[in-house]
Amino acid sequence: MILAVPSANFGYLCGMLSSDFFSSDTICALSTPDGVGALSVVRMSGRNAFSISEQIFIPAGKHKNITDKKLPAVIFGRVMDGEQILDEALVTAFKGPNSFSGEDTIEFSLHGSSFIRERLMQLLIEKGARPATQGEFTKRAFMNGKMDLSQAEAIGDLIHSESAAAHKIAMHQMRGGFGEELRALREGLVSFASLIELELDFGEEDVEFANRDDLKQQVNKIREVIHRLTDSFKIGNAIKHGVPVAIVGAPNAGKSTLLNALLNEEKAIVSSIAGTTRDVIEDTLTIDGILFRIIDTAGIRKNPDNEIERIGIERTFAKIKSADIVLYLYDASHTPQNKDMETPDQALQNAEQIQAEFPLAKVILVANKLDARFDGIWWANKFPFVGISAKEKQGIDELKKRMVEAMGGVPQPNQTVVTNLRHYDALVKADNYLQKVLEGLDLHITNDFVAMDIRQSLYHLGEITGQVTVDDLLENIFSKFCIGK
Amino acid sequence: MILAVPSANFGYLCGMLSSDFFSSDTICALSTPDGVGALSVVRMSGRNAFSISEQIFIPAGKHKNITDKKLPAVIFGRVMDGEQILDEALVTAFKGPNSFSGEDTIEFSLHGSSFIRERLMQLLIEKGARPATQGEFTKRAFMNGKMDLSQAEAIGDLIHSESAAAHKIAMHQMRGGFGEELRALREGLVSFASLIELELDFGEEDVEFANRDDLKQQVNKIREVIHRLTDSFKIGNAIKHGVPVAIVGAPNAGKSTLLNALLNEEKAIVSSIAGTTRDVIEDTLTIDGILFRIIDTAGIRKNPDNEIERIGIERTFAKIKSADIVLYLYDASHTPQNKDMETPDQALQNAEQIQAEFPLAKVILVANKLDARFDGIWWANKFPFVGISAKEKQGIDELKKRMVEAMGGVPQPNQTVVTNLRHYDALVKADNYLQKVLEGLDLHITNDFVAMDIRQSLYHLGEITGQVTVDDLLENIFSKFCIGK
Repeated sequence: MILAVPSANFGYLCGMLSSDFFSSDTICALSTPDGVGALSVVRMSGRNAFSISEQIFIPAGKHKNITDKKLPAVIFGRVMDGEQILDEALVTAFKGPNSFSGEDTIEFSLHGSSFIRERLMQLLIEKGARPATQGEFTKRAFMNGKMDLSQAEAIGDLIHSESAAAHKIAMHQMRGGFGEELRALREGLVSFASLIELELDFGEEDVEFANRDDLKQQVNKIREVIHRLTDSFKIGNAIKHGVPVAIVGAPNAGKSTLLNALLNEEKAIVSSIAGTTRDVIEDTLTIDGILFRIIDTAGIRKNPDNEIERIGIERTFAKIKSADIVLYLYDASHTPQNKDMETPDQALQNAEQIQAEFPLAKVILVANKLDARFDGIWWANKFPFVGISAKEKQGIDELKKRMVEAMGGVPQPNQTVVTNLRHYDALVKADNYLQKVLEGLDLHITNDFVAMDIRQSLYHLGEITGQVTVDDLLENIFSKFCIGK
Repeated sequence: MILAVPSANFGYLCGMLSSDFFSSDTICALSTPDGVGALSVVRMSGRNAFSISEQIFIPAGKHKNITDKKLPAVIFGRVMDGEQILDEALVTAFKGPNSFSGEDTIEFSLHGSSFIRERLMQLLIEKGARPATQGEFTKRAFMNGKMDLSQAEAIGDLIHSESAAAHKIAMHQMRGGFGEELRALREGLVSFASLIELELDFGEEDVEFANRDDLKQQVNKIREVIHRLTDSFKIGNAIKHGVPVAIVGAPNAGKSTLLNALLNEEKAIVSSIAGTTRDVIEDTLTIDGILFRIIDTAGIRKNPDNEIERIGIERTFAKIKSADIVLYLYDASHTPQNKDMETPDQALQNAEQIQAEFPLAKVILVANKLDARFDGIWWANKFPFVGISAKEKQGIDELKKRMVEAMGGVPQPNQTVVTNLRHYDALVKADNYLQKVLEGLDLHITNDFVAMDIRQSLYHLGEITGQVTVDDLLENIFSKFCIGK
């Protein structure tokens, strides 16, 4: 019995794929954002990309055809709509497989007019191209062996990355970092499998070629790597989507001032996030390249009358349920004489109540309004507060450090961080089968069953890079892409 | 005395320009629309474009430097942010003067991430480029003699063109059609001027080298061309901005049905105009490539109760004051027995009142609800109505034809149409001075004064193509461009 092991290189097991993946039709799409700009780019890929282009594009120089040039080449000329000139444009031509998609590809760099780009799309379709579906250029790149599936997915992540950390992780993955790590894992498993199989071949004779403990150690080493990867998903997911932060506390504790202090310090290059898919513009800040999103706690922050009241914990709960970090702000200008104000004990108690209610969030207790009183206040050593003065911008750096620590710190350069739920799920499944392998070894069940579990584990690892794949999965992945990619 | 005649080629009289136009600093900008898309393009132009690029871009192939390649070239490689990879990108390099701006130019085709493009802009600025102002690439193209001013302006028009007709006019102008026509005009004037000057040289001797009538005929021929151009401004302006159309009439005359009939027939490829600078999405339709904008007459169109009432002309006036075309819709289901309904006489009278109030608009009388009664109705030959059935979509083509005719018809291919108020003003001024020339010839005033008027006329013609120009004018023109163009 031989395990069905996918080849280590990109020999994808595509038997399950429907034939439309192998269709050689020619696709076209607007690849730049819609709207008014100086330039727009329309991209076309497929076997007729050159012949369709040559029907509508007249190069300005001595070469009559795009393919007369050594490719890749950039060619100035006229895009013709019958006898009329639609545009003067630059055409960049790539000969497959030396293109992004692996197919013959043409990019039209047009004057940024909606009329021109829409008319060009019409012309390309009239001449035999069809509009690309979402992510179809990248899907073709995957199908043509230009990249593995985790790399293809990273391109989508890269486009949507809004912070240095998210960008770094996506870039590492796009350049194959994750794939390499998985390849090493799979090779380890394949080598393990070959030992098991060898025993299978001699099954009747009841030989053991490998020590059970050695085998278990091999599996455990592989599981350690998988656990490191699954553990990284918390920070990975937070970095990819931004870390939701709620600032809560009694009225007048200084929530708005703290928010401004955090935002004023802000070094983020992504200051405006309009134009993305979110409906509402949130306050965001970037610390060590990690994007933090301040959840709109307007209902708490805006207090029309300055009446001192205990914070309504129930009311707050509704607003912080989506937070990964809760900054519980305590007004440290309280003294034992201020009977109406929250005491440190009450603050601690409220914070603990929030932590108990939301065990997955990290509650950080922050004592504000310390101003010039960082030392020598009566409760200073008694409670686990981070002391700040939002007004004087003191202690803000320490608070930021604590926020980053709460998320597990900043990933190292070239560290693989799992950011994708699909990958996380596949890793967990692969790990579960390895758990079964260990149990099987302990129970001395027959190698057939152990081999089956190894195969299942390999299958799930292979899902990540696309060594094994199904139509629905690909549809699902690429439907999240924008058109034109 | 020699007339200061600008050279026929692009030897611009730039003495008035401040030195910053000749600065050789390097500019950079995002040239594609902001927002999420597959690609974005950052463009850099100027003397350091190559050296700045080489500090941050590592080509993937054997060539270490961009300039090792024969340019223009498209080069795949890595954009570096220090030790980190910012992106894998395509760089297209153009060696000046063989570029759009006439300078060394680099275009980075990036993954369409706001993080990547903003960080790249920061890096380029750190290495010595500066952010381009609006239209600065095109301004440099003009300053470097790559195009005349009317061509540069046409690029802005091309980008904003939303209809086939607007696109055609802008394309003709961008390709130098207007400039050529003006060059012919100016040559005519220069040749005329040379005759006048020759007489000046012999002024004391009171010779006449040219017959006065011949001279006048020459001037009149030039004026004819100018008049043809200024006459085209009405349609040109309408085509560029779209023709505002108001549909008015008594309640239940069928205004909404007519609007739908017009829109349903619509062959416009610009169906959605969201994302442009207008605040409100209007109903638009394109007829023979001319864009018509239906003015929001919701106040008239929506009539909550179906009560028959005479149209409130005053209320309507406020809504149609910006219309170039008013469709006055009459409900032809009226018979002499329908005492409560508008009679043909009343409709005609109302339409005439509107026409009198808005002499610049064209009021078209439309009789609706003819349905199967196109012939044989009692008032048919008595009034100048266009007969339609909006419901049955009859007569709509005839109405559209009348709408296009009202705007002066569709421009011929390669016909120069003035679309720009600045050009129109300059033509009117040039013409006024030619009027003075004619008067001078009639009055036999001295040739010095005639020559001065010719010079003024030439000056104003030269303004259009930029043979004569001033800082403020250029600022004004290019500030209407988008950044990155």
